[in-house]
Amino acid sequence: MRVINLGLIGFGTIGTGMVKVLKERIPFFERELGIKLSLTAICDKDILTRRKVEIDKDILTQDVSRVVDDPQIDIVIELVGGLHPAKEFILRALKNKKHVVTANKALLAECGEEIFKYAEQQGVDVYFEASVGGGIPIIEALREGFVANKIEKIYGIINGTCNYILTQMSDKGCAFRVALKDAQDRGYAEKNPGLDINGIDSAHKIAILSRLCFKQKIPLEKIFIEGIRNISLSDIRYADELGYSIKLLAIAKRTSSNLQIRVHPTLLPKDHLLSNVQGVFNALFVNAALIGQALFFGQGAGQMPTASAVVSDIIFLAEKIQRPLVADNAKKTKIKIKEKPICTIDDIESRYYIRFSALDKPAVLAKVSAILGKYGISIFSVIQKGRRQAHIVPVVIMTHEAKEKNMRKALSEIDMLTVIKNKSVAIRVERV
Amino acid sequence: MRVINLGLIGFGTIGTGMVKVLKERIPFFERELGIKLSLTAICDKDILTRRKVEIDKDILTQDVSRVVDDPQIDIVIELVGGLHPAKEFILRALKNKKHVVTANKALLAECGEEIFKYAEQQGVDVYFEASVGGGIPIIEALREGFVANKIEKIYGIINGTCNYILTQMSDKGCAFRVALKDAQDRGYAEKNPGLDINGIDSAHKIAILSRLCFKQKIPLEKIFIEGIRNISLSDIRYADELGYSIKLLAIAKRTSSNLQIRVHPTLLPKDHLLSNVQGVFNALFVNAALIGQALFFGQGAGQMPTASAVVSDIIFLAEKIQRPLVADNAKKTKIKIKEKPICTIDDIESRYYIRFSALDKPAVLAKVSAILGKYGISIFSVIQKGRRQAHIVPVVIMTHEAKEKNMRKALSEIDMLTVIKNKSVAIRVERV
Repeated sequence: MRVINLGLIGFGTIGTGMVKVLKERIPFFERELGIKLSLTAICDKDILTRRKVEIDKDILTQDVSRVVDDPQIDIVIELVGGLHPAKEFILRALKNKKHVVTANKALLAECGEEIFKYAEQQGVDVYFEASVGGGIPIIEALREGFVANKIEKIYGIINGTCNYILTQMSDKGCAFRVALKDAQDRGYAEKNPGLDINGIDSAHKIAILSRLCFKQKIPLEKIFIEGIRNISLSDIRYADELGYSIKLLAIAKRTSSNLQIRVHPTLLPKDHLLSNVQGVFNALFVNAALIGQALFFGQGAGQMPTASAVVSDIIFLAEKIQRPLVADNAKKTKIKIKEKPICTIDDIESRYYIRFSALDKPAVLAKVSAILGKYGISIFSVIQKGRRQAHIVPVVIMTHEAKEKNMRKALSEIDMLTVIKNKSVAIRVERV
Repeated sequence: MRVINLGLIGFGTIGTGMVKVLKERIPFFERELGIKLSLTAICDKDILTRRKVEIDKDILTQDVSRVVDDPQIDIVIELVGGLHPAKEFILRALKNKKHVVTANKALLAECGEEIFKYAEQQGVDVYFEASVGGGIPIIEALREGFVANKIEKIYGIINGTCNYILTQMSDKGCAFRVALKDAQDRGYAEKNPGLDINGIDSAHKIAILSRLCFKQKIPLEKIFIEGIRNISLSDIRYADELGYSIKLLAIAKRTSSNLQIRVHPTLLPKDHLLSNVQGVFNALFVNAALIGQALFFGQGAGQMPTASAVVSDIIFLAEKIQRPLVADNAKKTKIKIKEKPICTIDDIESRYYIRFSALDKPAVLAKVSAILGKYGISIFSVIQKGRRQAHIVPVVIMTHEAKEKNMRKALSEIDMLTVIKNKSVAIRVERV
């Protein structure tokens, strides 16, 4: 049996978890799958700190060439994270015709096109199950399980930090700031939480998923991104009263003419499964012609779920290595498919939840609805509450489908009315 | 590029769906995956009925040997269903070293051991994604995505007919018989619905999943099976009042000493995701050391979801065929692992929902609880309602964990009390 040699770059939390799993499962892989793995080198800047796993000291190195250049090594596992030097490490491994496993969502979102093209040119593969949805085999499902399907829509709760914060606000009735502090205390949010709460991390992940589903380049800058920083407790409460929860959704849709890819807080009917995804859990809802609706749920991050995904990629690649492609086989037909334009946020159509802070005067609603009407936005329902503070009353409106462009124009006009006190809030509503 | 030839046996609903999908996706598979498929023969008893898909008449035959014996054919797709002659067809295909794709859950549950062993001996594979959970890639996830995990527990809603009936009873407040009739009218239940509502179909599927998770033989007769025929509307209502829904669950657990594999109606907390799986949908909840909790949800049956699963298996096998195993590679180490005994239902521990029909006399509860106490069963909560009909009152008790054996003894003693009118009802409660 040919031994398949692995080299790891990045011996942090995930790396340590992966080494633990490998040590435990190597006999099983040999016995059940006929795959013999050997971890041959581990590279990290820090080779002094003791990790919670026993390893042969000789394999630990600060010299990355012992991983990416060693001709013995078949698969390089990149768990460094970030753009640089992770990108250079991966490209060098590919140059040396090594397969790569990575959990690096930021890098794949930014430079995926370049990396995948180069890998194809070199005749090797880049696997990335751990980059989205932690231990949930989402990538595998989209690539293999649903291979017969044209994926039409995906809706993901793919950032555990944001989902934890929104769940806490909803369950405990606390403000955003309090929930964020709690998430930080528990280690669910970073000290500098921008990447998560501003929606960037979700955007990275939906870029990766969209590329996989729609087989075309998805430039990050074409993804509309809105985070959860401005979600207030009162919006969560009004939404609840209307039968909705608020979730940070990453959305990717294929229409007949274009693609829509966006990340923003979204009202979802409470009886939808995605509404019931609580705390740090992740879920991906998929809509496709043959399978109809499907949902995948699980832990989207953490040491062992992520290690689980990394190891499943290693096994996939090991099976490929044991089965070398016969030269003539599997030549892809080079047909260039017309790429679909990615729709700007201006052109999407959505229902909206809008909250106005109105001075408690008669005819406010008449003025507001006149402006909405002018832009072709029709009202589905209204909640107008009694006086709250200093003559200001909240007015909550749910609209029918409207164009985002029109909604923005209407809102800026409404916000200029003297009877409107604060900037109005608008949150998109999805019928998933 | 080597063309991979497919032969289909069984040109019914699923078969027709599969042919449709293939016709549509063949160019995509060639372009994106470098896989060239050709459907070379279709065998069915009925070659006259027109199906809703265009095919070359020459490939349609009543002669099964044109599929299973033709040396050109690489993969045989068995969609005949039932034990015989499906089993003989599959064995003959394997004998001729053809890979097999099947959706035949009954056959795999009954004869899986024999079929898989023979396939291994012949150096070919049997794939069966469509046998459980329709279009949801459950088998793939358990086999590949979770390969690094020891699966501890799986809980499945894997029979859409039963889930539809229970959902209807709960939502519409109708009796079992009415809901069954409705399911039959909609084509969700067969005229002779025994296989579904008696839990046999779920047992077939959990046998397949357990074998995959626990890597050992799972004889069908060791699976405890209880269907939904005796679930009454009043139990659904009491369960609801207590915060539970009633679902037909297929359960497989690995403990340190044994395996528990069973199918029965189960009380599940209403806030659990499985409780929110409605209608004909299926879901599988998985618990494993690394990934923690995961859930897969989707359409568990139907023409196109099932065809989707069949085609994904074909692609998996086609990729393997293009990558012939080098002789020396992937020899499995032959270590015989000790199989775990499968626990009988007597020895499981569970919480229970129990409903007694008591004569409206004082001291009924005292008598009942004395018997429960004698068998070491302690009470968690009680609902006792006012008089309903002719001096009979329902008494509903939720217990703490108790051994099934003790519960049965207690119930038979309780049912002999003169103050108890009808046979008592007991439903297991799971903390999933």
